[in-house]
Amino acid sequence: MAQEDPSWKTFFEENPKPTNFDKNVKLIQDVCQHAAVKKNRVALITSGGTTVPLEQNTVRFIDNFSAGTRGSASAEYFLDAGYQVIFLHRSKSLEPYSRHLVGRNIFDMIEVLPDHITVGDKHQIELRVVAEKYQRHKCNLLMISFNTLADYLWLLQATAQKMQILGPLALLYLAAAVSDFYIPTSQMPHHKIQSSGGPLSLSLQLVPKMLAPLVTLWAPNAFVVSFKLETNETLLETKSKESLLKYHHNVVIGNILNSRKVYVTLVDSASSSAEEIRLSASDLENGVEIESKIVENLKIRHEKYYANHKTG
Amino acid sequence: MAQEDPSWKTFFEENPKPTNFDKNVKLIQDVCQHAAVKKNRVALITSGGTTVPLEQNTVRFIDNFSAGTRGSASAEYFLDAGYQVIFLHRSKSLEPYSRHLVGRNIFDMIEVLPDHITVGDKHQIELRVVAEKYQRHKCNLLMISFNTLADYLWLLQATAQKMQILGPLALLYLAAAVSDFYIPTSQMPHHKIQSSGGPLSLSLQLVPKMLAPLVTLWAPNAFVVSFKLETNETLLETKSKESLLKYHHNVVIGNILNSRKVYVTLVDSASSSAEEIRLSASDLENGVEIESKIVENLKIRHEKYYANHKTG
Repeated sequence: MAQEDPSWKTFFEENPKPTNFDKNVKLIQDVCQHAAVKKNRVALITSGGTTVPLEQNTVRFIDNFSAGTRGSASAEYFLDAGYQVIFLHRSKSLEPYSRHLVGRNIFDMIEVLPDHITVGDKHQIELRVVAEKYQRHKCNLLMISFNTLADYLWLLQATAQKMQILGPLALLYLAAAVSDFYIPTSQMPHHKIQSSGGPLSLSLQLVPKMLAPLVTLWAPNAFVVSFKLETNETLLETKSKESLLKYHHNVVIGNILNSRKVYVTLVDSASSSAEEIRLSASDLENGVEIESKIVENLKIRHEKYYANHKTG
Repeated sequence: MAQEDPSWKTFFEENPKPTNFDKNVKLIQDVCQHAAVKKNRVALITSGGTTVPLEQNTVRFIDNFSAGTRGSASAEYFLDAGYQVIFLHRSKSLEPYSRHLVGRNIFDMIEVLPDHITVGDKHQIELRVVAEKYQRHKCNLLMISFNTLADYLWLLQATAQKMQILGPLALLYLAAAVSDFYIPTSQMPHHKIQSSGGPLSLSLQLVPKMLAPLVTLWAPNAFVVSFKLETNETLLETKSKESLLKYHHNVVIGNILNSRKVYVTLVDSASSSAEEIRLSASDLENGVEIESKIVENLKIRHEKYYANHKTG
């Protein structure tokens, strides 16, 4: 497929690498090499939305709705499940562990005493639970951030390639909300678009589908999970299956914008029917997150995949 | 001006109020009424970028580059200067005090001991400084958040109107990066735009300039400071002066995308020449923020304005 359609290659030729690229790739490589030696499973989790600049000196950009909830929560459950995690996330989107404090001001939780400051009594239990988990798992968590679509795709390619040495031990969980459209650098104005020019017309190109080279070239033996987000439920299962037929990866998780925190469908290349994962009323009452069930489900599928790979 | 050009009225007719609008307006009203009785100065600080949805069930939106650095830092200095502050900010953008911890993980600063958790020794001094300031000033700080352009404009109008009872004691510091373009609800697709439709053409309308009704109708006696952000230095002073001539407010602060943290120009309606505010090498070395100088400068201008208003 890559030979027929080299549009993904053109994209990389036209869009320069992000800053700190080499440094980040080195960190990723170290994780993969170390894990390969120890036969550890590694999950790449992509998370958050990508931006598409409208100007070269960027003031305006198109963004995708994504706080990073799915990715950041899933990262914690993959760590709990014994994976090493590479968390490739949009800068300022939710991160594992610290996500539990978002929307709250840490200075409301700090008590100022004459000779030292400490965590207020009311917050001791809640913060202890998270702090203990974080400190237990942080050695298995590598966090790398991006902003633009191009930054993300460069880092995705490099990470997938570095994960190749892990073979079927590698799991890719592509939860980032990646833009479908962009404006090529050559068609972007250099300076901020002036409002005195009247109404604005924008023309956006399709972003090449990177799942094709990812599955066939960059990480051909990895277990690859992609996401489909729709707002229209009638399209969901069809589009998920189409995606699997087109790219030949392992699992598509389909979700609807308004119900994504309680309900997803899971389509596996090894079976034709969709599986539902749904939070029950008692799950909701007990604060169970759907990501714990998604990861539990994927862990089993990944184990089977790995076992087949060894024997097959 | 409002009678000749009612486009701002049409905007409010076409775009519904944000959720929690009435509750937030009540909080704002309480601050203003209380301050009016005590003759306290109140600063409205707007901060962060506004989003412009591309779909009614929004997956994609256009955003403006703004982390909220200017607004959140300025809020702290206005509080230090004795103002009560209404901080109208983009959800998840930087906030006063907590901004000092952005990019760092609080769980790296917490020490887990057998019987309690506390702030690690290394972080005691730094966190104490901020915690003390926060706890001293938080009773004078009201934080209200928004996401979309329409949410922002509804809240701006309401706040300005509620500040009217403060007369010249009100200062409006409009640091938010407000979109110049938007797609009217009636022209927006209902569902997520499908990438199978090929390249995407977008047509955006100009957002009505709300500074006109704000200055003439909503808060006619307030001291109003607006910002001009450009990427092209040659346009800056001309555009700042044009803005002042057009809207008849009090101060325009001009800044260039790449140098905005060390240099701004300030144009006052009372004088024709622009004043520069610039951080010196020693300021930079000592971690002085340019917002401390901007606020100090504005405080003096606001005092003069208030004195003239009383006698004039």
